[in-house]
Amino acid sequence: MLTEYGGPDVLRVTDTPSPTPGPDEILVDVAHSAVNRADVLQRKGLYPDPRGWAVEIPGLEYAGTVAACGDRVSEWRVGDAVMGIESGGCYSEQLVTHARQAMPVPHGVDQRDASAIPEVFVTAWDALVVQGGLTSGRWALVHAGASGVGTAAIQIAKAIGASIAVTCSSGKAATCVELGADLVLERSPADWRAQLGAELEARGVEGVDVVLDVIGGEEVERNLVAVRERGRIVQVGLLGGGTATVNVGRLLSKRITWCGTVLRARPLEEKLAISRRFVAEVLPLFADGTLRPVIDRRFALDDVAAAHRVMEADGNVGKLLLDVHP
Amino acid sequence: MLTEYGGPDVLRVTDTPSPTPGPDEILVDVAHSAVNRADVLQRKGLYPDPRGWAVEIPGLEYAGTVAACGDRVSEWRVGDAVMGIESGGCYSEQLVTHARQAMPVPHGVDQRDASAIPEVFVTAWDALVVQGGLTSGRWALVHAGASGVGTAAIQIAKAIGASIAVTCSSGKAATCVELGADLVLERSPADWRAQLGAELEARGVEGVDVVLDVIGGEEVERNLVAVRERGRIVQVGLLGGGTATVNVGRLLSKRITWCGTVLRARPLEEKLAISRRFVAEVLPLFADGTLRPVIDRRFALDDVAAAHRVMEADGNVGKLLLDVHP
Repeated sequence: MLTEYGGPDVLRVTDTPSPTPGPDEILVDVAHSAVNRADVLQRKGLYPDPRGWAVEIPGLEYAGTVAACGDRVSEWRVGDAVMGIESGGCYSEQLVTHARQAMPVPHGVDQRDASAIPEVFVTAWDALVVQGGLTSGRWALVHAGASGVGTAAIQIAKAIGASIAVTCSSGKAATCVELGADLVLERSPADWRAQLGAELEARGVEGVDVVLDVIGGEEVERNLVAVRERGRIVQVGLLGGGTATVNVGRLLSKRITWCGTVLRARPLEEKLAISRRFVAEVLPLFADGTLRPVIDRRFALDDVAAAHRVMEADGNVGKLLLDVHP
Repeated sequence: MLTEYGGPDVLRVTDTPSPTPGPDEILVDVAHSAVNRADVLQRKGLYPDPRGWAVEIPGLEYAGTVAACGDRVSEWRVGDAVMGIESGGCYSEQLVTHARQAMPVPHGVDQRDASAIPEVFVTAWDALVVQGGLTSGRWALVHAGASGVGTAAIQIAKAIGASIAVTCSSGKAATCVELGADLVLERSPADWRAQLGAELEARGVEGVDVVLDVIGGEEVERNLVAVRERGRIVQVGLLGGGTATVNVGRLLSKRITWCGTVLRARPLEEKLAISRRFVAEVLPLFADGTLRPVIDRRFALDDVAAAHRVMEADGNVGKLLLDVHP
C-alpha cells in the first residue's frame, strides 16, 4: 500500500481488513498480480486511484480464485479461476470485483501466468481493433514493441491477419521478430520514419492504417506522417511528454482520426462491456496457443519495489509479475 | 477560370468547350453557383483542384437543370432541377457529374437559392452528425457561427433536438440568435472559454459533446478544454493557422477524438454515399421550412472578383451566391 508518494521504497506490505463483496460482486483470493507503468505513476502521486481511496493499494490486474459470491451472482462458483482488470487494489491478497468484470483464466494458460494477460491484451486489442478498426490486410504501427502492450499488440495483429510494424529500444528487436512483427524499427539513433517509409513503399503500401502510441511527445507528428489517408492514431500513453506540436493541415488533408484512450477511468458499464467482449473475441485465441502471455520475470509481493525499479529503468521485455499467493 | 494564381482579378470569364457526360453522368446547365473559402485558397494557388485540371475552373457547388443524360442514367430526365457538390468547375455555364452525386433541389426551396445549400449543409451535417455523432439532448460548439457552415450548423443542431453554442465575430451575433443558437460567444476581445464554461455550468452540463472547428490554431487547445469526457472534435478548416500545440494528456484523460475531414478530396464512392444519405436524411427538412438557406448577397458571374473580396474581408453572414444563368 501507499501511505505516502515517492520512490519504490514507499511501497509497504501491511495488514488491512478483508473487503466484503456486494450482492453483484465476488471476493477473489489473489494468487498473482503484475506491475504496470501506471503503478509507477501512481506511486509517485501522478496518477491516483480514481476511486479516491483513503489508503491506495496499487495494482491494476490479478489472477486468482473465487473465494465468495454475492447474493445475486450466478456467473461464478467458489473455486473458479478468474482474472481481470481493476482501477487499483491488486497488489493484495484479496479484492472484490463486479461478477461481470471478472474473466475466466483461459484454457491453455497456467494460472501462474494469467495475470500477465488482462491489462496488456485488453489495452492492445481495444486500441488496435475496437478503437483503431484494425482488420485483416491492414497495417498497424505500435511503439514500444517489446513492452507488455507491444508484445500483446504484435500477437493480436498477426492473429487477425493484419501486418504490424513496431518501434523498440535498441537490443529488444529479437523478441519482436520472434513474436511475429513484420517490421522492427529500432528507435535510436535513427528516425524510424525513413525506414518505415522505405519498407512500406517496397511493399506498395501507402501508409499504416492504425497507430497505437504509448509515447506521445515528438512521436505525435511522426504518427501523422506514418498513417495513410483516413488512418487512425490511438493514444494510450505519453511516456515521451505531455505536449505535442501538431500539423493540423496534415490531420485535415489526410482525414486522420486521433483519439485518446484509458481503461482505468472508464465507468462501470464500459468496463463490463469490454470484459465480456474480450472474453468472447480474444480469450479463445489463448486456448490453441495463438496468443500467449510474455513474461520477463517474477517477483514476490515483498519485492515489489525491485519490480518497480526494473520498469522505471525500461529493463523489461514483456510483463513483470508479482506472486502474491503462488 | 484561372490561368494564373493571385488576387481576385486573376478570375476571368472565358469560353471553354462544353463537357460531354459519360454513360453514368449527367450534363447540367448551371443557373447558380456560390463562393466558398476553398475557392479563395484555390485562386491563391494554395488548394488546387485535386483532379489536376490543366486550366482550373473554381466553384464547389451548383444549382441548375439537367441538360442531357448518359446512356446508363435512370435517375434523372432532361429538365429536372438539380444541385450538388463538385471538386471544382462550378463557376461555369455547364458541368458534368455522376448521376448519383447530383441531388434534387428540395421542395420548398426556390431554385434561385438552392446553390446556397450543398457545400455548407453537407459539411455541417457530415461533421456534426455523421462524424461527430451529435444527437438530441447533446451540445455542439461551432466556430464562426455566422459563416455559411455556421448558419447551417445552427439550424441542423436545432432540427435534431440538440443544443448549440457558437463563436462569432463581433457584430454577427444577432443572426446566430435568430437562427436558434442557444449560446452565442463573441470571439473578441474576451476568451470565449470562460463564458462557455459558466453558461454550461449554470445548465448542469459538463462540456460540449461535439466541436465543429473551421479555425484550428489557438482554438485547438481551447476545444480540448471545452469538450466533455469522450467528446469529439471535427476539424473542418484551419483559418487560424496550420500548427497547434496540443496537451496530449487532456486528449488521453478525457478520451477525446479529434478528426480531420474534407469533402473535396474524397473518392467517388464516398461522395456518392454522402449525397444519397444527405438526400434521405436532410433534404426533407427543407420542405417544411425547418432548414433554410442563409444568403448574404448575390453577384453576377462577371462580378465574381467582388464576391471573393467580401469573403476575404470576412464581410458576409451566410452565403455569397453567383448568378450564372439566373
